Amino acid sequence: MPNYTANTRDMQFVLHELLKISGQDVPGYADLEREFTEAVLDAAGKVASEVLAPLNAVGDTQGCKLENGAVRVPAGFDAAFAAMKEGGWTALDCNPEYGGQGMPYVINCAVGEMFVSANMAFNMYQGLTHGAVSAIEAHGTDAQKATYLPKMVACDWTGTMNLTEPHCGTDLGLLRTKAEPQADGSYKITGTKIFISAGDHDLAENIIHLVLAKAPGGGEGTKGISLFIVPKFLVNADGSLGARNAVSVGKVEHKMGIHGSATCVMNYDGATGYLLGDLHKGMRAMFTMMNEARLGVGLQGYAVAEAAYQAALAYAKDRLQGRAVTGVANPAGPADPLIVHPDIRRALMDQKSFLEGARAFTFWGATLIDRAHGLQDAEAEGLISLMTPVIKGFLTDKGFEACVQAQQVWGGHGYIEEQGMSQFVRDARITMIYEGANGVQALDLVGRKLAAEGGKPLMGFFEMVKAECKAHDGDERMKPFTDALKVASKQMQAAGMFFLQNAAKNPDAALSGSYDFMHLMGHVCLGLMWTRMAAAAHAALDGGASDRAFYEAKITTGRYYMARHLPACGLHLARIESGSEGVMGLSADQF
Amino acid sequence: MPNYTANTRDMQFVLHELLKISGQDVPGYADLEREFTEAVLDAAGKVASEVLAPLNAVGDTQGCKLENGAVRVPAGFDAAFAAMKEGGWTALDCNPEYGGQGMPYVINCAVGEMFVSANMAFNMYQGLTHGAVSAIEAHGTDAQKATYLPKMVACDWTGTMNLTEPHCGTDLGLLRTKAEPQADGSYKITGTKIFISAGDHDLAENIIHLVLAKAPGGGEGTKGISLFIVPKFLVNADGSLGARNAVSVGKVEHKMGIHGSATCVMNYDGATGYLLGDLHKGMRAMFTMMNEARLGVGLQGYAVAEAAYQAALAYAKDRLQGRAVTGVANPAGPADPLIVHPDIRRALMDQKSFLEGARAFTFWGATLIDRAHGLQDAEAEGLISLMTPVIKGFLTDKGFEACVQAQQVWGGHGYIEEQGMSQFVRDARITMIYEGANGVQALDLVGRKLAAEGGKPLMGFFEMVKAECKAHDGDERMKPFTDALKVASKQMQAAGMFFLQNAAKNPDAALSGSYDFMHLMGHVCLGLMWTRMAAAAHAALDGGASDRAFYEAKITTGRYYMARHLPACGLHLARIESGSEGVMGLSADQF
Repeated sequence: MPNYTANTRDMQFVLHELLKISGQDVPGYADLEREFTEAVLDAAGKVASEVLAPLNAVGDTQGCKLENGAVRVPAGFDAAFAAMKEGGWTALDCNPEYGGQGMPYVINCAVGEMFVSANMAFNMYQGLTHGAVSAIEAHGTDAQKATYLPKMVACDWTGTMNLTEPHCGTDLGLLRTKAEPQADGSYKITGTKIFISAGDHDLAENIIHLVLAKAPGGGEGTKGISLFIVPKFLVNADGSLGARNAVSVGKVEHKMGIHGSATCVMNYDGATGYLLGDLHKGMRAMFTMMNEARLGVGLQGYAVAEAAYQAALAYAKDRLQGRAVTGVANPAGPADPLIVHPDIRRALMDQKSFLEGARAFTFWGATLIDRAHGLQDAEAEGLISLMTPVIKGFLTDKGFEACVQAQQVWGGHGYIEEQGMSQFVRDARITMIYEGANGVQALDLVGRKLAAEGGKPLMGFFEMVKAECKAHDGDERMKPFTDALKVASKQMQAAGMFFLQNAAKNPDAALSGSYDFMHLMGHVCLGLMWTRMAAAAHAALDGGASDRAFYEAKITTGRYYMARHLPACGLHLARIESGSEGVMGLSADQF
Repeated sequence: MPNYTANTRDMQFVLHELLKISGQDVPGYADLEREFTEAVLDAAGKVASEVLAPLNAVGDTQGCKLENGAVRVPAGFDAAFAAMKEGGWTALDCNPEYGGQGMPYVINCAVGEMFVSANMAFNMYQGLTHGAVSAIEAHGTDAQKATYLPKMVACDWTGTMNLTEPHCGTDLGLLRTKAEPQADGSYKITGTKIFISAGDHDLAENIIHLVLAKAPGGGEGTKGISLFIVPKFLVNADGSLGARNAVSVGKVEHKMGIHGSATCVMNYDGATGYLLGDLHKGMRAMFTMMNEARLGVGLQGYAVAEAAYQAALAYAKDRLQGRAVTGVANPAGPADPLIVHPDIRRALMDQKSFLEGARAFTFWGATLIDRAHGLQDAEAEGLISLMTPVIKGFLTDKGFEACVQAQQVWGGHGYIEEQGMSQFVRDARITMIYEGANGVQALDLVGRKLAAEGGKPLMGFFEMVKAECKAHDGDERMKPFTDALKVASKQMQAAGMFFLQNAAKNPDAALSGSYDFMHLMGHVCLGLMWTRMAAAAHAALDGGASDRAFYEAKITTGRYYMARHLPACGLHLARIESGSEGVMGLSADQF
């Protein structure tokens, strides 16, 4: 079974040497001194390795069971959940007013990466609660906040998000769940919701469902949608639990992965619900949580891959097979370890260079969210809105690929369930699908985000790339980075120009290239991160840092990414520029 | 549950309009008139759809069970196996001398594609037997052939291949299974073999294991290895079954996919074995089957993807979600079918253009095997040896990707096991691993095949590509094909040149690019196939073919592949030319 050890060394590098968080003017950042974050990360890493990781395979093997209308989670999840609550890990960046620790979101991300790497399915119970807390905090009345938030921040009660119905997921305008207004101001909610993560379980006293439904008078499509709070148990005026609400579990889904996460069909049969936020403004209320939720899924994509990579690396160092082509490397053994073989190295370097870039990109995104929230920084808000579909779509696609590569390093043994490599692949697969399938992310990026605010965030990003390259002008050591980044950035601009020239007269031509653009931009973003990391590493070496091997590895890994992965931008541009002729050329019955 | 319908129309196109099989001078090909192959393919397609496909999910759900030392296959497999035997489908290209139907291998491939698409796991019982039959026919004594082949061709007895041991797979030089010579000329075989497909089951009266083991006196490493026949039940002189041999099942593996295929740990405890072929020449005996076995796995890679594609296409036409960006396409419904959306089209076209190219490539490869065997055609033998790692490695990588894309079209529903899309992904995954993991294929290609016969087959391939382009000189309609193919072929030559210039002084530099070269060459091969298919389609249209929609779709699909996928060759070349600096730049402890 794979072991997981949090890569706190690299996290510290990203937080302090790349992002220089404690020097930023964001509320709370001044407290994030190197020693403090190290203590937090070390403690979280210990929980991840010792409490969560050992339950990962258990969750996969046992899954969640529906018995007499109630869902039972895998053995050991309850004790681990209690330990998480006890340690305050479920409330790290929550508002202290409701019992949270009030840390910035970027710290929550770093810690979250560890928890997801160790046990993605387990982490969803608190993850969904976190989302519901944000929604209630942003849109709830004072009474609603007082009723729900202290219990939810403590994870005594957990939360869910109910969007999807059997016939509609992406196209929520089609949804049928109804909300009928009652005399007392509440609503009766009736309908069926599917794919509800943590829809039911035995980890908490109560479950607070946030449900999208149509109340009368809102008009057609998404315009008529409102958001409702529907507790599993109604809450009395004194905060104690009252009657069971008319919400029940129809089924626990049998999924490809994340078996430890209870994915439920939820039936609402005239359940009592309370309007959250404005009537008929439910979609807007959902969207305010979207950047954070989608960044969280992008994080899952690479965090699972981090765990898979650690297992692949351990195997590559341990398994003896064949001899190095350049001469025997392990004369004492019957064969050399796999890691001597160039093609195994290539697979490990692909993973490593992606993972470190993805971590930097995600943490950077988290600082943008902290800026947007903490400073009402409109520029940061525009930039993270632009980046969000890339973080979600690109990191989950590449994270899944990395898991497949890690499994491949294990050869036939990787295909055997008991070894744990298959679980990484199966778990990671969902990240490409939920919280908006990656095709929808690409559509959001090209159809909405590129032109948002008249293209200001996009132009800001190009300027940022340009400035980064300019900052290293004349530094020969940085040329492998800036040269590749300049080419890729130009290719991204050319792609944007293609969209601009074609979108109006033939929207299909732009959208036929949306997926490739998401990947092109993903590479440019990781290229930017690698350029900055390389500069930070050179600075550390120039400053006489003692840990030279770490910084030298950082530069080598970055050069690998620039040389081997940035050229993908040219391929994506070629595809984009081929337009819609091939994509839309067949009639449906010619397929 | 996905339905499967064999694409006989496309197979007929490949066999008769692309490969023009009945006009070739290969033994048996003259009988393969269009009407005859149509009858065979239609009958096989009916078996695939009606007998095998309905058992695909059953096999996945039930798996294989070890009970009291014997393996029980999923319900219904026995009746289906009997039906396959009854219909003669298990002996299609076997020698009539032993009860086979004597058809060329290319027909076996076409039929095999259908069976694999319908039920990959089920098809392995006969697939492994087929391999063992080939080995015994090639290397057995007359007495061995008489004893085993009639029963095995009929699939009354099935076969296995025993190579892998717990500590060695690729590096067979490490194997420990021992063969001790006995006074009567037999051997006592002792050791443990793992990952033995069809190692035990209840579909046949006897199982004939072919086992690699070390007999005394052969020297170190692979040189000491011999191949042995080890029957589950010893066979009496009169052909009846005798005593149970000392071979037993240690375990049935719990795998990520192909659950219906019994993957066993086999324990040989002084089991009686009979030398097959020459002593200490076991590796050579195994290698004679390798082209065919590896082509068969490449075929599995795209055949599973064909089934997944059909399911994705059906869903894309059926599922209503959102509206076409160019205007409402389905005014009578609440939304438009998914297939109107450019990004869904892109995914479907990626799959379709890969699948049709892969089919052409594989069938072409099968004709090379038929030429090599039937005509002792050394040129065909050289060419298929060169192509084999590409067929195996490239088609399984891309087949898996295609399955993932097909699953993605289904959105959240694709992640639910009952829908069947997950099974395609999980089943296809093994094809990248077994029969030589794809990294080993790439090593075989670059380390061995490129330079084989002084590079003659490689030069022959380049000449073939050149001739194909030249043949369409001046034909404007073919320019999108020949232009792209010329560029890609030059990139492949440049990669070959890089290897040539670096292999001697730095073998790591060549091997660091082996995987990319396998993919580069795969694209060139599919580009060649698409060029030829487009020419055949134009010829049909020029000749007034009635089925115009089919040929026009063929050309559009081919143009899609050339425009969207051939440019990947440039990316692969860039990676190859980046050499080993990044790949080998870290010390093992810097990872």
